[in-house]
Amino acid sequence: MSRRTTTRRATLTQERILNESARVFNRRGYHGTRLDDIARALHVTKAALYYHVRSKEDVLFQCHLRSLEIAMEGMALARERTTAPDERLRIALRHYMERMTDQLTATVVLLDEGALSPVLHRRLVQKRDAFERELRALLEDGVAAGTFVACDPKLIGLAILGAINWIPKWFDPDGPRSGAEVADVFADYLVRGLLHEPARTNGAGAGAFASPAETLA
Amino acid sequence: MSRRTTTRRATLTQERILNESARVFNRRGYHGTRLDDIARALHVTKAALYYHVRSKEDVLFQCHLRSLEIAMEGMALARERTTAPDERLRIALRHYMERMTDQLTATVVLLDEGALSPVLHRRLVQKRDAFERELRALLEDGVAAGTFVACDPKLIGLAILGAINWIPKWFDPDGPRSGAEVADVFADYLVRGLLHEPARTNGAGAGAFASPAETLA
Repeated sequence: MSRRTTTRRATLTQERILNESARVFNRRGYHGTRLDDIARALHVTKAALYYHVRSKEDVLFQCHLRSLEIAMEGMALARERTTAPDERLRIALRHYMERMTDQLTATVVLLDEGALSPVLHRRLVQKRDAFERELRALLEDGVAAGTFVACDPKLIGLAILGAINWIPKWFDPDGPRSGAEVADVFADYLVRGLLHEPARTNGAGAGAFASPAETLA
Repeated sequence: MSRRTTTRRATLTQERILNESARVFNRRGYHGTRLDDIARALHVTKAALYYHVRSKEDVLFQCHLRSLEIAMEGMALARERTTAPDERLRIALRHYMERMTDQLTATVVLLDEGALSPVLHRRLVQKRDAFERELRALLEDGVAAGTFVACDPKLIGLAILGAINWIPKWFDPDGPRSGAEVADVFADYLVRGLLHEPARTNGAGAGAFASPAETLA
């Protein structure tokens, strides 16, 4: 918090750059994006952008890093709040999705091959693996505790991450559903599929039907 | 079948081109892929490839089209086999995933903005919308029949599609799990989250733990 206060301007700028960059990468793909496109999205000149970032690769790396940090924050938050595996999973997933839709820092869904140097790529893979290990451990805890049905934590983890990582492809901040609503519905549904005895009603995010949105573009 | 027999050579070639192209697009992103890369993956010259395809855009369009056709085939198959909404959903999703992992024609997960001309883009969006409408109608049928809990079919549909569309990002045909196994586990888990009264055990794809696989690269 103190860091945030003392370097508020810089922090905000870094955040804005990452948010807009993630948005542009998600729309155009890494190779289809130039720093020019990011500068335009930020309404600044390319020279002004270069004052803050070293390269397009640097921006991509920072986006991925931030996204993984948010994911790990969710896990830590969940551990602090409860020991019940289903609640922990719900809290962790909800945090990740809320922050992701809020900031759109998001997972830059596709890590195009060759986009990052081997060194940076390795650093992300290590962090990514650490997060996936925690997710799998949480699923295993739930099975051991008798809260979750027997499952393949590797595959179920990938199903959960897929559903979540796809959100930036279709989520519209001006659409009928807020990020928090999406996070609630998704977390309930994804946890419910694991429960030995889910509540008889609700739990898959009951609510009014949303209006159609683009998911392909 | 008869079409397949009479034009077997041509059909196989078209299939091979689409399969390899989807693989390369998924790895490198559309803008990061050149027809050269696809030719190399197919072990043919670029000239030989040009004999079969008009352009990179044409290949991308055909990949998306094939993927949507497979998705619709699954829906039709499910309708023929049963009227039970949970079984229909399971059959439709399983078919889509099996064919996708089998052929890797796959959804080319990211449709980069500006990758396709507006006319081709519109044709895909129409087909994609038709499929999503069918998926939502199936979810609504399940709720109406009392098989599924109350849910927001739009958001749940997007969660399901996200989990499935992410598969090409991590699935390894030489990995520990076959496409059919992945399809089974995913379909069970995704349907289970909707059921009023899921079976007490199993249903989230019980099985031995799979070994780690790359999901970021």
